[in-house]
Amino acid sequence: MVELEIRTQSHSELRDITSQVRQAVSDQGVAEGVCHVFVPHTTAGLTLNENWDPDVRGDLVRALQAMVPDVHFRHGEGNSPAHLLAGLVGAGQTLLVRGGKLVLGRWQGVYLAEFDGPRMRRVLVKVIADPQ
Amino acid sequence: MVELEIRTQSHSELRDITSQVRQAVSDQGVAEGVCHVFVPHTTAGLTLNENWDPDVRGDLVRALQAMVPDVHFRHGEGNSPAHLLAGLVGAGQTLLVRGGKLVLGRWQGVYLAEFDGPRMRRVLVKVIADPQ
Amino acid sequence: MVELEIRTQSHSELRDITSQVRQAVSDQGVAEGVCHVFVPHTTAGLTLNENWDPDVRGDLVRALQAMVPDVHFRHGEGNSPAHLLAGLVGAGQTLLVRGGKLVLGRWQGVYLAEFDGPRMRRVLVKVIADPQ
Repeated sequence: MVELEIRTQSHSELRDITSQVRQAVSDQGVAEGVCHVFVPHTTAGLTLNENWDPDVRGDLVRALQAMVPDVHFRHGEGNSPAHLLAGLVGAGQTLLVRGGKLVLGRWQGVYLAEFDGPRMRRVLVKVIADPQ
Repeated sequence: MVELEIRTQSHSELRDITSQVRQAVSDQGVAEGVCHVFVPHTTAGLTLNENWDPDVRGDLVRALQAMVPDVHFRHGEGNSPAHLLAGLVGAGQTLLVRGGKLVLGRWQGVYLAEFDGPRMRRVLVKVIADPQ
Repeated sequence: MVELEIRTQSHSELRDITSQVRQAVSDQGVAEGVCHVFVPHTTAGLTLNENWDPDVRGDLVRALQAMVPDVHFRHGEGNSPAHLLAGLVGAGQTLLVRGGKLVLGRWQGVYLAEFDGPRMRRVLVKVIADPQ
């Protein structure tokens, strides 16, 4: 298992970690298998989305924040919206590995979704070879 | 790994792909294991939901579209709502395989969630036997 | 595969099942591997979120319910909001196992997300050792 350390820069952002995940896969020398990516936090998540136009990331962050409903949040830390969005985006993703490489669509990137930053975050990457 | 090609018919729909995923599982002859289903797109996703009353699918599509907030989207292609909903629904799911068959609840079906169609979409299905 | 039976107590709640999932992992005696948790229902899901302040769970449930848009739902059973929220939260999660234990963040718990209870629910837990 590889543990990435990612420093986020804003309160809320989608931070591209595709190259770090690709590197973790190639470091482990697995030809055919799967790659589990997991974020061990409750106010950040993991998501896949477009890797080309950075406006998409900005649009997604603003739209997610606008989706948080106007209810009275009781949690004293004041970051219930971050817990909500982290839960909706999800904490992890299983990716496929073929020919030693991550299988992603042409426009797919892997993003750490920060909703309560900036912070240092951890991302766990575990690559498992297919059984022989 | 099996690659399904699915032609969606509408701009937004939940398209039942349960039988194709079941077939991919039985084709691979794995008795006990897991089945990773992955959509390599950023304006479509994968979800599980009720397989009986087709009104549920319609309700879900209309509700998801109504959840898209009224923010100014900058992405020039105009499909930021599709990117948002694909991210919320998620790109994949790990299913369990027991006795050579997919383990699904009585009312669970597997759906390709299209948010920017109609298009030809790909769905990757990888079945992995438990290690001996 | 272990099958947990969980009795939910309210119409909508996040029910902590972390200890049961931890127990299922330790019962199977796997040192290094993964743990797939799967909910075979369409009006309940599985999510990870904060395990400390119970106000977070209450906040999340109320916020999720408030996010359900005011559209006309056609499904006759009247539980389309539960289907919507179950789809958004997701039906399963792959967790990592290291040193015989579930790898969770310090504040992460595993929750059955009930949206149409109270009911008896099933949660499937499958632990797979890494290939040798």
